Amino acid sequence: MADAALDAVRRELREFPAAARGARNLVHVTGGRPLSDRACVAAPFPSPLELSVPLAVPYLDKPPGPLHFYRDWVCPSRPCIIRNALQHWPALQKWSLPYLRWGLPWVECGRCSGASGLGLNVHSSRATAGSAEVSVAVTPDGYADAVRGDRFVMPAERRLPLSCVLDVLEGRAQHPGVLYVQKQCSNLLTELPQLLPDLEPHVPWASEALGKMPDAVNFWLGEAAAVTSLHKDHYENLYCVISGEKHFLLHPPSDRPFIPYELYTPASYQLTEEGSFKMVDEETMEKVPWIPLDPLAPDLAQYPSYSQAQALHCTVQTGEMLYLPALWFHHVQQSHGCMAVNFWYDMEYDLKYSYFQLLDSLTKASGLN
Amino acid sequence: MADAALDAVRRELREFPAAARGARNLVHVTGGRPLSDRACVAAPFPSPLELSVPLAVPYLDKPPGPLHFYRDWVCPSRPCIIRNALQHWPALQKWSLPYLRWGLPWVECGRCSGASGLGLNVHSSRATAGSAEVSVAVTPDGYADAVRGDRFVMPAERRLPLSCVLDVLEGRAQHPGVLYVQKQCSNLLTELPQLLPDLEPHVPWASEALGKMPDAVNFWLGEAAAVTSLHKDHYENLYCVISGEKHFLLHPPSDRPFIPYELYTPASYQLTEEGSFKMVDEETMEKVPWIPLDPLAPDLAQYPSYSQAQALHCTVQTGEMLYLPALWFHHVQQSHGCMAVNFWYDMEYDLKYSYFQLLDSLTKASGLN
Repeated sequence: MADAALDAVRRELREFPAAARGARNLVHVTGGRPLSDRACVAAPFPSPLELSVPLAVPYLDKPPGPLHFYRDWVCPSRPCIIRNALQHWPALQKWSLPYLRWGLPWVECGRCSGASGLGLNVHSSRATAGSAEVSVAVTPDGYADAVRGDRFVMPAERRLPLSCVLDVLEGRAQHPGVLYVQKQCSNLLTELPQLLPDLEPHVPWASEALGKMPDAVNFWLGEAAAVTSLHKDHYENLYCVISGEKHFLLHPPSDRPFIPYELYTPASYQLTEEGSFKMVDEETMEKVPWIPLDPLAPDLAQYPSYSQAQALHCTVQTGEMLYLPALWFHHVQQSHGCMAVNFWYDMEYDLKYSYFQLLDSLTKASGLN
Repeated sequence: MADAALDAVRRELREFPAAARGARNLVHVTGGRPLSDRACVAAPFPSPLELSVPLAVPYLDKPPGPLHFYRDWVCPSRPCIIRNALQHWPALQKWSLPYLRWGLPWVECGRCSGASGLGLNVHSSRATAGSAEVSVAVTPDGYADAVRGDRFVMPAERRLPLSCVLDVLEGRAQHPGVLYVQKQCSNLLTELPQLLPDLEPHVPWASEALGKMPDAVNFWLGEAAAVTSLHKDHYENLYCVISGEKHFLLHPPSDRPFIPYELYTPASYQLTEEGSFKMVDEETMEKVPWIPLDPLAPDLAQYPSYSQAQALHCTVQTGEMLYLPALWFHHVQQSHGCMAVNFWYDMEYDLKYSYFQLLDSLTKASGLN
């Protein structure tokens, strides 16, 4: 009895990701009667094309109005790439590695084209970002916050002048490991306020839609080898690429039954004076549940059910904004020196959130992973 | 092993209704780290007062704007009672049983106050509703679409002039059983178009919010004994009381694990020429899943887990509009002769819908009910 019931539970959980994508919504008739049992209005059957999870991330040609954004994207938890949302940000024209160092875009300086061509424009009167000290995640292999062996390993965190990071990105200097400016505690506001005049401090149509201001505005700059491992956040995320491109691999929250989690002892990299890395356990921290799987090279022998999860891939180009709904799993790579800013708006802890928590709990309770 | 896992699954399902109400949302930390594992922004902890399912249905003093309606009520699937949403409808001043019969509100006729006082205003030039033929659900006990013994029994359906129904409601005539004008196939548009000038054919702020027009506009008129048994619809429902009052007993979709369903052979009442009722099986119909439980007098010996479901009760008064989100379970009673109009907007078959379907399937698969 228990075996049969548990099998049935597991089957429902394994069928859920496809159902949530829209395929099984075609059959929402129970026992020959529509869900609204007393209605003579025919129960509508969604077309197979109206998938809840699209096969590819759709593009919008311009920012949606607040109601449309909320109704068509936030509420149904659907990602999209929005074009022409940033074109009024000076950052889009100005930002380059030399600009971050010197504070004026070299293309705007007619008086000293020689010097500015070398990124040596000294006419900037404004405090430059280059001298600001920023938090930099440093890892031996580009993977910050990822599973290594039986540990969940966080990066070494160094405070470096932004100019040092730029030196490394431009090949003028070397630094052990891989650098990634990626501290997600509103580091744009706290560490690089000089850059604020170059963009808006929030996304007005999104703030209006969500009825709140962002909790954090983060600045991202790193090497091509810097990778963000597969994880999810409890934020609605508007991710804006200012220069370069970001490659996202995505799974909807409904893929949870196919995405393995395990508990790991937390550790951090430490950078020795000789420039090598050692892994040091974080003794005071509790064990961390994390996704052991690399979606670019999944170990399907160990995690066979992941083969049933269908990742969406998208590239967010310069000037584009990705809306990444809260609780979507994401793995991120980038072009070398890619500059980006993202806005984190706190998610709503509503019925949809509770449903995800249930899916998560049941995936674990049923022993699926 | 299977026993323990199945127990764990059932425990999660039984704990879900409270979690979805907001109580357990206080603990959304897993393994000592916030859900967004890499964030230094503190994970927000909702206050116990910010319940996803309120303890009582909240009131709004005026219709919300489209964005607010969608964001604060539709998306999180929260009911509310909206005041001052109908005051511009002539129906609210005009509709009465005599008006439905004769077509002009007697209070507006100064010339023949005697006759109009009897509901006999003959000055109406417009086609009156009283002569229109309407579908009437007739049942021996007031329960249309309810479980009786081992059958799911639908009402006898009679076509009667509305004036006959009014005669019965006003005590001028008798009819076997209990009458309820409640045919939910846009009967206001198809059977009583004479009444359309007295109201708006849709709810503009709701249509804008939902991005669609209603699938059905239904007219409701019945005796005090007419009861709508506990069920759910796949429609966003705006239920407007024009005269009298409606009493709703509600359960959120998340209460599904505590709400029993069973499969029943469908049957219909037939009214014999002698005025008695007989139950006739609907031989061609498949079995119908229905809720056997009367929430006003639940058989807790048979359905003990229902004792853990917390019903919300509300009364919608004359001039008020209830927003009843799709998939909320509802049981409805009314004052004698209560007149109401409701708008059914098709729901979105999105992630939240898929999650409900999963909850439904898992409740069944795990053997909870």
